[in-house]
Amino acid sequence: MRAAYMYGPGDVRVIDAPEPRIEQPTDAVLRTIVACVCGSDLHPYHSMKPNTAGRSMGHEMVAVVEEIGADVRTVAPGDVVIVPFVFSCGVCDFCREGLQTSCRVAGLSVPTGAGGAQAQYRRAPFADGTLYRVDVTEDDERMPGLLTLSDVYGTGWHAAVTGGVRAGKDVVVIGDGAVGLLAVLSARQLGAERIVLMGRHRARTDLGRRFGATDVVAERGEDGVAAVRDLTGGDGAHVVVDAVGHLPAYEQALGVVRAGGTVTRVGVPQYSDGPVGRVQFERNVTIAGGVAPVRAYIDALLPGVLDGTVDPGAVFDRELPLDDAAEGYRLMDDRDALKVMLRP
Amino acid sequence: MRAAYMYGPGDVRVIDAPEPRIEQPTDAVLRTIVACVCGSDLHPYHSMKPNTAGRSMGHEMVAVVEEIGADVRTVAPGDVVIVPFVFSCGVCDFCREGLQTSCRVAGLSVPTGAGGAQAQYRRAPFADGTLYRVDVTEDDERMPGLLTLSDVYGTGWHAAVTGGVRAGKDVVVIGDGAVGLLAVLSARQLGAERIVLMGRHRARTDLGRRFGATDVVAERGEDGVAAVRDLTGGDGAHVVVDAVGHLPAYEQALGVVRAGGTVTRVGVPQYSDGPVGRVQFERNVTIAGGVAPVRAYIDALLPGVLDGTVDPGAVFDRELPLDDAAEGYRLMDDRDALKVMLRP
Repeated sequence: MRAAYMYGPGDVRVIDAPEPRIEQPTDAVLRTIVACVCGSDLHPYHSMKPNTAGRSMGHEMVAVVEEIGADVRTVAPGDVVIVPFVFSCGVCDFCREGLQTSCRVAGLSVPTGAGGAQAQYRRAPFADGTLYRVDVTEDDERMPGLLTLSDVYGTGWHAAVTGGVRAGKDVVVIGDGAVGLLAVLSARQLGAERIVLMGRHRARTDLGRRFGATDVVAERGEDGVAAVRDLTGGDGAHVVVDAVGHLPAYEQALGVVRAGGTVTRVGVPQYSDGPVGRVQFERNVTIAGGVAPVRAYIDALLPGVLDGTVDPGAVFDRELPLDDAAEGYRLMDDRDALKVMLRP
Repeated sequence: MRAAYMYGPGDVRVIDAPEPRIEQPTDAVLRTIVACVCGSDLHPYHSMKPNTAGRSMGHEMVAVVEEIGADVRTVAPGDVVIVPFVFSCGVCDFCREGLQTSCRVAGLSVPTGAGGAQAQYRRAPFADGTLYRVDVTEDDERMPGLLTLSDVYGTGWHAAVTGGVRAGKDVVVIGDGAVGLLAVLSARQLGAERIVLMGRHRARTDLGRRFGATDVVAERGEDGVAAVRDLTGGDGAHVVVDAVGHLPAYEQALGVVRAGGTVTRVGVPQYSDGPVGRVQFERNVTIAGGVAPVRAYIDALLPGVLDGTVDPGAVFDRELPLDDAAEGYRLMDDRDALKVMLRP
């Protein structure tokens, strides 16, 4: 089968790889309908240690179940399924609490040996606990929206939920990538009043306005902080979403959050230490967020995607064949594309 | 009048100082019934830059109203009042939200020119928004408990509330000072199941057990983390209170918090940067807490103090005349006393 591998910075190739097969009775084998490139895929694209064996890429997909293991009960061959970016057993205490990213037997910290989603086929461990069956056909036009439920929409929603967005709150979203834009959409759905999007790419911030942003601030750093404070009566916002992950974005977030407010992070931090002393303490600022357990949110978010109330799939502004994955990475890295969908 | 001043590390003197008087129509002048030394007073006691003018000390007190300004409506001469450690107007949006520490006209960041509480008299700005009248006499035996409502009990309560303690949660409290012990008491009142107190001073941890700690861990650092993980099935606790404020305590807190849990800080951070990257992000750990708006909590906590349900005043293990304040600092600094009450 064809599959995208990364071998070092800027080096993505689509190669012939062995097709996956059932290894555990709880596995399913999936055939990809759509996959995509994630902003977080750009981190190794910049800094990956060169590796001749390559790394199988991709973690977002909607797929058709091809085959299931003997113990799989909730999906069957032919089903269309959303595949959350983290596998989860569905039965441990963390899964039942809705923190599937900390699943005791799969989750983030347990290697599962599954290949990436930027491939024709993929083995899905813990199929029952992970896969989410959707009653659509392979050629459904809502496929882009469904694909966002495997990561970016659920991640934006996680930001809004862990930030405590509710009716009447002011929200700042730092970052106009797909996650930031879907954090805007999520904040709007949860009733936020003012939603300030901090970003400088016009096509993206325009989409942010479509999703519900009331204001756009293009400035960064101190100028950006001053602009947001102007918009919020000098106080900053109740909830600030860091959808970037670099230290300056975190520092900017601390600069625009209101006393008693929350900075919630869904951009993977590219730093280990940072300001965490009196800057939060004296103003009772909470730091929340983390890797989104998107599996937990599909129940809540799917209806809006299916009935067209929301259009999160609009974050995909380019579609390429899987064989052109390298071009997809380049487009996103050069910011020529917001988010690239791949079809085998 | 007599008043305690600090002039440099280890240098506390009780001197004759001018008596305060009404300066603004919203002021009251208070006569001290009881005051005390706070763990946070020990920070300047160690590291204050020497200053020949000295610094007026103390921020916790129960007092009698001696005189009021023309605009004061809610207290009258002769009233016994609890004096929260931060002054607040009571009418701005932050005060109404219960975040009096961020009051727009008083609060933490607005100098009020009021002297310290370790004195015979004190001017209280914003009397209506700050002072809390209690229907007791000056010689009431519950005075130590009432005094804790001006800071340490409310601060322990703030930890438990901002940490999200509720029925069935496991809690770890780092630090066996007065705030840590009262965080234990607060966690118990809020229904925590297991409460692990990390401390190594037997008399204090014994009081912690009286307040509701189910376990005591004397080890620190890696050994302490391992011991708490043993007690919590390897997972750590849902809520971890840092009642210390030094970086190792914060790092220890990150080591004993469960995925999806909260580290809440009520010990004033003595650091500005620290771990705030993937260590929280991958496990969805929230960092909460801050300077406690104790004024907001008196309504909830006073009844238990008055009816004897709880005995937070037990944190005072020594009482000295105000003139011996220097000895009070020494006793606390040497850990010969947990918390020293001062009476003029």
